[in-house]
Amino acid sequence: MKDFFTVTPLEKVFEYIATFPVAAPETIPIGNATERILAQDIRADEDIPAFSRSTMDGYAVCASSTFGASEGNPAYLTINGAISMGENPSVRVLPGSAIRISTGGMLPMGADSVVMMEYADEIDETTLEIYKSVAPGTNVIAKGEDIQQGQSLLSPGLKLRPQEIGLLAALGITQVAVFQKPTVGIISTGDEIVPIQDIPGPAQVRDINSYSIAGMVVQAGGIPMNFGIIKDNYDALFEICRKALRETDILILSGGSSVGTRDLTIEVLNSLEDAHILVHGIPISPGKPTILARAGNKPVWGLPGHVTSAMVVFDRVVRPFIEYAGGKNRLTKNHTRHIPARISRNIASAQGRTDFIRVRLKETDDGMWAEPVLGKSGLINTMIHADGLVEIDMNTEGLDKGSAVSVIPL
Amino acid sequence: MKDFFTVTPLEKVFEYIATFPVAAPETIPIGNATERILAQDIRADEDIPAFSRSTMDGYAVCASSTFGASEGNPAYLTINGAISMGENPSVRVLPGSAIRISTGGMLPMGADSVVMMEYADEIDETTLEIYKSVAPGTNVIAKGEDIQQGQSLLSPGLKLRPQEIGLLAALGITQVAVFQKPTVGIISTGDEIVPIQDIPGPAQVRDINSYSIAGMVVQAGGIPMNFGIIKDNYDALFEICRKALRETDILILSGGSSVGTRDLTIEVLNSLEDAHILVHGIPISPGKPTILARAGNKPVWGLPGHVTSAMVVFDRVVRPFIEYAGGKNRLTKNHTRHIPARISRNIASAQGRTDFIRVRLKETDDGMWAEPVLGKSGLINTMIHADGLVEIDMNTEGLDKGSAVSVIPL
Repeated sequence: MKDFFTVTPLEKVFEYIATFPVAAPETIPIGNATERILAQDIRADEDIPAFSRSTMDGYAVCASSTFGASEGNPAYLTINGAISMGENPSVRVLPGSAIRISTGGMLPMGADSVVMMEYADEIDETTLEIYKSVAPGTNVIAKGEDIQQGQSLLSPGLKLRPQEIGLLAALGITQVAVFQKPTVGIISTGDEIVPIQDIPGPAQVRDINSYSIAGMVVQAGGIPMNFGIIKDNYDALFEICRKALRETDILILSGGSSVGTRDLTIEVLNSLEDAHILVHGIPISPGKPTILARAGNKPVWGLPGHVTSAMVVFDRVVRPFIEYAGGKNRLTKNHTRHIPARISRNIASAQGRTDFIRVRLKETDDGMWAEPVLGKSGLINTMIHADGLVEIDMNTEGLDKGSAVSVIPL
Repeated sequence: MKDFFTVTPLEKVFEYIATFPVAAPETIPIGNATERILAQDIRADEDIPAFSRSTMDGYAVCASSTFGASEGNPAYLTINGAISMGENPSVRVLPGSAIRISTGGMLPMGADSVVMMEYADEIDETTLEIYKSVAPGTNVIAKGEDIQQGQSLLSPGLKLRPQEIGLLAALGITQVAVFQKPTVGIISTGDEIVPIQDIPGPAQVRDINSYSIAGMVVQAGGIPMNFGIIKDNYDALFEICRKALRETDILILSGGSSVGTRDLTIEVLNSLEDAHILVHGIPISPGKPTILARAGNKPVWGLPGHVTSAMVVFDRVVRPFIEYAGGKNRLTKNHTRHIPARISRNIASAQGRTDFIRVRLKETDDGMWAEPVLGKSGLINTMIHADGLVEIDMNTEGLDKGSAVSVIPL
């Protein structure tokens, strides 16, 4: 079999990631920052909590006042008032005395622990009977126990989850620096492609890729910008690429899988200002005829035209570039998204290329199974039926039924 | 230990889900519909592809013309022109002839297969040498092979992924009905709570929960609406609840973990128009003091005040209500998000309640391990360090080191 282009190993392709720029930071209210990528260090300027707090409703005491207390042999303490929420307690707890306290209340001076109300009875207005002894620190969060002043908490590159947003709120940080979302231009190429609102004539098909790729750009943290459908014409493609490169951070051309279109894409990319081809073919299946060029400091992708191939290449190859441009730290990349499973049947695979098999996940009493979705790789229904991808390494000839696999969710 | 309220088993709580309404549908452009919940049936009005297409660059042939061809014994065919992309081919392929075709091109009449260009040589302008025989259907996607006209494809309740958006594009569907996002009001209660931009005085803390819960509402497919911080005052809480119930679909009160605040919340919820308490306590940890009320046809939640408890209750209990209100089909719920792992140490758990343990995921050569995050449940840093939750069933006394667990990602 003749090879029409020299493929670039996947790990070599990924080495280009860090040669492209990362988006500039912008400062936004933390209420809008969920799932954005943090662009600053977060340190604690204060202790959290700033004072020792009760974690229960009950009575603030000196633990020593309760030692030896039990149901059969209760301890008796003098009730010395109550602490209101948000109030700086002025009373002091002495041995033998107790003060009513609510969950979250500030521990008064002298107290070192809280007896839960479930283990105490108020015999009269001033007498408390306690059935259980507590150790110092019981039912208390000490000053700085959650977060210590000066502690380094979060680093740039982290995708902010609701708990990180809560942490920022706790620290009084109302505005946070996150990386701007990179803009990703999408150009659909091909003489056979028509807009989706059109009724395709004979031999014509609707522009699927612009829409499926735009959805994946959103999920990768980018902002898709659609530049329409361009016929296989040098001047038209050249002009739209120049325009898109002026307006976006990353450019994706989709549709040029045939040799003719691919040649045209290569010709246009090579003639753009300060541009050259970095990658012309990747040893993966589906997705071999993938092109990566650099135009100035911007990556330009030529994706295969098959819907499925384009999506697989996007997910496995293009996405890390967009995430990097969006500031995401590859080291904190949540590989734990992958779902361990076993493959439900034998899968053949050619050595020398990495195969991505679409699979359906099936949870059984016997564990999680990955069932390969059958059907040609050009069929979009195989992606509809798929829950994820299984990677078969280029040095492997295939997988035996029952082999452990790591499923990449789609 | 005295029980201050009668808890409602989790499965009973979930039975209330379907007693609340689902949001109305709205019609939006498919370019905005990624990760929205589909609100209509999608059927195929046409075959996809609408014509038989080549999946390779090569030559459209009658397969029978190639039978027996090999490197040692090539077949010779007459080249009868080329098919342009998007062109309805007028020529017919006869036995013994071949027509040049590109990937995605429409198969001409008479042809039933495509020979890849890698297995053919043009000897001269009209003579093609073929080294490999093909079977009928080789390198062709037949009309309707991807999707058949009349086929039922997608059902309401599905979260639209990029591939489903691509499918809609393929069918020429430019606008799609999705469920409106439910609006979720958030009210923070507690005399000790101050706005996050304030410097808390002694015994005061910043309003963390409004922000962490708002982030979780977004992730659950809702629209958070913040109604501020309300002191523990009947009239103030009553009025803000009435206002919020007029303006939102679901209401969450956060912060009332102390008995006093909880009593006040109950009193207010009971006195709202057409309102009554459904759930007052759930046998889960953390999160026992959770309240669910119905006000008219709207669910009202009272979440525990501890940051971590509030987040765990939201994720495990409140989220399904928001997802249901947002039209998500619980049957298509992607349980496959859960990550199988083994627990790295013994964990004790009380029978009669469901425990949710925060864990860190660690991928080793020996598989995926879930390491419990240590620290009191009131500490936000335990949520920052956690990758997910492990549920310990109420009938289980605990987990032995090495037990298989299913990690719920956070």
